[in-house]
Amino acid sequence: MVDHTVSSFDDELQGLRSAIMEMGGIAEKMLLDATTALVRRDVNQAQAVVAMDDRLDDLQRQIEERAILTIAKRQPLAVDLREVISAIRIASDIERIGDMAKNIGKRTLAVSGQFEPQKVVLGVNRMSELVQAQLKDALDAYTQGNLEAAMDVWERDEATDALYTSLFRELLTYMMEDPRNISFCTHLLFCAKNVERIGDHTTNIAETVHYLVKGEPLTAERPKKDRTSLEHVEHTGK
Amino acid sequence: MVDHTVSSFDDELQGLRSAIMEMGGIAEKMLLDATTALVRRDVNQAQAVVAMDDRLDDLQRQIEERAILTIAKRQPLAVDLREVISAIRIASDIERIGDMAKNIGKRTLAVSGQFEPQKVVLGVNRMSELVQAQLKDALDAYTQGNLEAAMDVWERDEATDALYTSLFRELLTYMMEDPRNISFCTHLLFCAKNVERIGDHTTNIAETVHYLVKGEPLTAERPKKDRTSLEHVEHTGK
Repeated sequence: MVDHTVSSFDDELQGLRSAIMEMGGIAEKMLLDATTALVRRDVNQAQAVVAMDDRLDDLQRQIEERAILTIAKRQPLAVDLREVISAIRIASDIERIGDMAKNIGKRTLAVSGQFEPQKVVLGVNRMSELVQAQLKDALDAYTQGNLEAAMDVWERDEATDALYTSLFRELLTYMMEDPRNISFCTHLLFCAKNVERIGDHTTNIAETVHYLVKGEPLTAERPKKDRTSLEHVEHTGK
Repeated sequence: MVDHTVSSFDDELQGLRSAIMEMGGIAEKMLLDATTALVRRDVNQAQAVVAMDDRLDDLQRQIEERAILTIAKRQPLAVDLREVISAIRIASDIERIGDMAKNIGKRTLAVSGQFEPQKVVLGVNRMSELVQAQLKDALDAYTQGNLEAAMDVWERDEATDALYTSLFRELLTYMMEDPRNISFCTHLLFCAKNVERIGDHTTNIAETVHYLVKGEPLTAERPKKDRTSLEHVEHTGK
């Protein structure tokens, strides 16, 4: 922990940034491991992912506390204030990414051993790989204060959403073809939704980097939202 | 908006609390209306719910900004600092409650006119009624600083989760019985999940009231979490 009585403001900021980097590393690992565990139906790995989430929750609470103490003590202005606010926001997004990876881990425990179409599992995996790259790039953009890289991440969420929409339709089709697929595919639907939401939080991080660098919120509409809430897949009567 | 140059700290706090009350009122209405629209398949009402969410997002941003300015300017300590932090947290929970109610609205637009088992829609409605009462009581507990009421809300989340779990199983059973139910029931699954998550955010609000009143976080484990991520419903071969 930073010593709040003697450290400089820069030291405090550095402490916040280091803690966020630790959180980012854990969240990246959780997402990768949760997806790998799902693909391999690896119960041990899934349990390990679930266990990792506690550390993320602790770090988020610490970052929030330290950030608020820093605001109260230093009364930072302009970019300094944005640094502290950004730390609070990004920590909150990473904490929620952890919750979703943990949920994928839990669902892997539930589906292990069930009958399943492996093809859709690989679809979730492909989507997860896209989001893993987005998350890594968003965290790098934050570390480097790189606006261009952040905007690139922001635009890539569209591809993830498109993949989610096609996966959603595919899963519904499998469910309609064979009722034995329903239980498993329902869990996969929620796993895919979790990955899609992790993509949203990654986009939030990119928006926070924009706010941090430019000093104003990004007001443009996001490229595209998940549209599956508007989807209606017809049963073909097969 | 509060005038930050001349207002007293108490005025600023009062401004934050009023804005949270406005947010709470909107969120309560959104949840009620989204569920009613779902039950009646009322497209106009569902669209109105979707439109309401913008105001909630604006208010949340305003509260966050004003709260941080207040911390920087007043350097509040002890209960005063907790007041400001609680405002930030509760605004964030209410904003997310709005997102979920909005999602129910969107799904209502998607399912309107579809074949459906009305019984499960009423199940979602019953669950929503429980959560509406929880939300109202959590907001009242915040307004009154009533720890006992907050703890009561906190404990009631268990009933919501139990209802969600039974609804989840019921929905899967409908899907297995008749593939024509799958598309609709999938949307309902996500609606029920949204209501369940609104319950979680309501529990968060109760925990924030605990922190506000007692000065320390509630460390006890939540009574019971949603266990459907561990559910495995067997296909009965019907």
